[in-house]
Amino acid sequence: MEGNASSSGSHPHVVILGGGFGGLAVARGLADTNARVTLIDRRNHHLFQPLLYQVATAGLSAPSIAAPLRQILRRQANVTVLMDEALDVDLAQRCVTLGHGTLGYDALVVATGATHAYFGHDDWERHAPGLKTLDDAFTIRRRVLLAFERAEREDDPAQRQAWLNFVVVGGGATGVELAGTLAEIARHTLPREFRRADPRRANVLLVEAGPRLLPAFAPELSEKARRQLEKLGVEVRLGTAVTRIDGQGVMLGDTPHAARTVLWAAGVAASPLGSRLGAPVDRAGRVLVEPDLSVPGHPEVFVIGDLASVTQPDGKPVPGVAPAAKQMGRHVAAALKARWQGKTSPPFRYRDDGSLATIGRMAAVAQFGRLKLSGLLAWWVWLVAHIAFLIGFRNRLVVMLDWAWAYWTYQRHARIVTGRDETATLPRDA
Amino acid sequence: MEGNASSSGSHPHVVILGGGFGGLAVARGLADTNARVTLIDRRNHHLFQPLLYQVATAGLSAPSIAAPLRQILRRQANVTVLMDEALDVDLAQRCVTLGHGTLGYDALVVATGATHAYFGHDDWERHAPGLKTLDDAFTIRRRVLLAFERAEREDDPAQRQAWLNFVVVGGGATGVELAGTLAEIARHTLPREFRRADPRRANVLLVEAGPRLLPAFAPELSEKARRQLEKLGVEVRLGTAVTRIDGQGVMLGDTPHAARTVLWAAGVAASPLGSRLGAPVDRAGRVLVEPDLSVPGHPEVFVIGDLASVTQPDGKPVPGVAPAAKQMGRHVAAALKARWQGKTSPPFRYRDDGSLATIGRMAAVAQFGRLKLSGLLAWWVWLVAHIAFLIGFRNRLVVMLDWAWAYWTYQRHARIVTGRDETATLPRDA
Repeated sequence: MEGNASSSGSHPHVVILGGGFGGLAVARGLADTNARVTLIDRRNHHLFQPLLYQVATAGLSAPSIAAPLRQILRRQANVTVLMDEALDVDLAQRCVTLGHGTLGYDALVVATGATHAYFGHDDWERHAPGLKTLDDAFTIRRRVLLAFERAEREDDPAQRQAWLNFVVVGGGATGVELAGTLAEIARHTLPREFRRADPRRANVLLVEAGPRLLPAFAPELSEKARRQLEKLGVEVRLGTAVTRIDGQGVMLGDTPHAARTVLWAAGVAASPLGSRLGAPVDRAGRVLVEPDLSVPGHPEVFVIGDLASVTQPDGKPVPGVAPAAKQMGRHVAAALKARWQGKTSPPFRYRDDGSLATIGRMAAVAQFGRLKLSGLLAWWVWLVAHIAFLIGFRNRLVVMLDWAWAYWTYQRHARIVTGRDETATLPRDA
Repeated sequence: MEGNASSSGSHPHVVILGGGFGGLAVARGLADTNARVTLIDRRNHHLFQPLLYQVATAGLSAPSIAAPLRQILRRQANVTVLMDEALDVDLAQRCVTLGHGTLGYDALVVATGATHAYFGHDDWERHAPGLKTLDDAFTIRRRVLLAFERAEREDDPAQRQAWLNFVVVGGGATGVELAGTLAEIARHTLPREFRRADPRRANVLLVEAGPRLLPAFAPELSEKARRQLEKLGVEVRLGTAVTRIDGQGVMLGDTPHAARTVLWAAGVAASPLGSRLGAPVDRAGRVLVEPDLSVPGHPEVFVIGDLASVTQPDGKPVPGVAPAAKQMGRHVAAALKARWQGKTSPPFRYRDDGSLATIGRMAAVAQFGRLKLSGLLAWWVWLVAHIAFLIGFRNRLVVMLDWAWAYWTYQRHARIVTGRDETATLPRDA
């Protein structure tokens, strides 16, 4: 693409990097303006990340939680969607270097999010996949399903049990969801289908280095989550650090634990683009933005979503969740519109609409200010909220159908192994 | 797995290689016997291959047309499913060499099917993917969707058009289905979503070396299929040989045709296991079996489905279609039961239930003996037949929902690009 120069005056060019909840909210917020908007994403789809663990655990098919960005935005004529990768930003020249060409801007919104991080142990990645993209979800699905297949084919009892042992590292929302669902699959979905291995002998171990699960929730809900997980059959180990991960399992402090399947839900690191903006970043690489979400010294550049480090007036950080990213996106759209009308924009205020985490069948925790729920009621709230927020009527319908089906039959319809079996190439004793 | 010795006497061990339509029919046909049955497949799922092109063209999600083999067979207690690869057969020792161990048998059914073949041009495969597995379908889906994304990002008009040019090689059922659906996507699904490239300028070229499309159908239906395709916007070129395929396009005879996306639907070759059975094979590698589908000299070994070359008493070959594979599977199960009761089994007779091929929206051809249908009526017959034959009530419901949605909205819900973009690594001028 040519060096698409930014225009000035009546048709400002707004470039949005990233089509997640934040970037999409900016684009939509500019629908009623005469701005030209270009949305860049490495992928062709917006992903409903809160349900990604369901794709990883074979409960939903990928298209149920993902929609092409250009389909979502097709009716908004002032938006051009380009599938490309943003490599660098030139703040002085006001242009973005893409994988294919450069793009000038009048205003830039960086919303490229975060990925999983291994705290300096990058070699753990091949043994313990994390969950951020659809491809990650397919990798986890393949490893989990193949583990049961290997167990069925294995004659040595110790090896068979190692294939039936699962470790989830990290007790945040993703770790809790993965562990609870794995236990449900082993106990309810698979038992009748195997003749030699017994899936009910699967052990799902959830390891958290901190003192409690779900640290974003009130302590009593963390405790309720732990008890609900144990009821589902998950073994929870708190205050336990994973010191090593390899093809044989994990090292918990000094104790080895054999497990051929390890899933990573422990750490996130901000997109590398954050460090290219000349602004201070925090330990996780998130950009310390101004109260209006702009980059210090560059009022025309904004950072939103998981890539932004924002502290509220009460001193609490804004959490890295979808509602916060959406609110930031709407804020930036409003701020741009105010500026174009010669007005000043107010600082960003995060409105906490509550937190929800699902744990498994009829088990969840929810917190709305002082109201705390757990168990069946929290699960219903979770279910309704997630179906309501899913983009597109059709997806909602299909997800409801899939869930109703799974609920009554204990079946999970997406139990399809595709792609390369990377465990086959791992040396057995690595 | 240990050298699982075959038993003798009252509990014969039947090993089935391949969980397609044929293998599955054998397993199900042995449900009411005391035989021990082991079904081996490289994949964990049975695939409803007649709808695979819909996954490749983003109309259906993979789990809608695939179900885990062990889930399908879970209630049949005499069947053990193992996910493994069959590498060789030792006819003298009556055992199969698997990727992991060996397995003895009293009776063996080889139903490992066929894959696509490039007539000695294996280097064409990277430029022109074929369609046999779910992974193939994902590759085609990714290439097709990315081609439109590339066109949108491309400034050079000739390069842009090359990304909008699609070639389908082979005018059998798969080629006709792919070409018709590509034209529909370009003309109806995508137009409003692009701002720089115009998907309606896409050219879909269907190339067939022979004198007509769908050679398995009556000549007048071939002609009707051609006209219906052209009405949908497909350019059909008959009697034209593809002499070269590379990253720039195809060579049609001596004429180059620029196209960045080429799909292969031209040739199939039998599974290599066929040549390990010591029996004569035809040019495509299919095993020339006895009238009862057994291997000459080895009445305990059967070959069925696309791997078997069977000639009917009237001299016509049995076609490589799903109903034929199912009938062969049922025949082998019945033959084994007859033998165990000391009876002789009759030769296999193929019952032609008719042929169906879909072409696109409200366009299909159908042939039932002398009855020939085309257009809307044939399309309805195709729709009802394919939904009826899909395994599992849930899949049928979801497929119907997806199709109804696609029909009314022209949208295709599975337009998700995942996996590695292999075209990015192809040299631009390769």
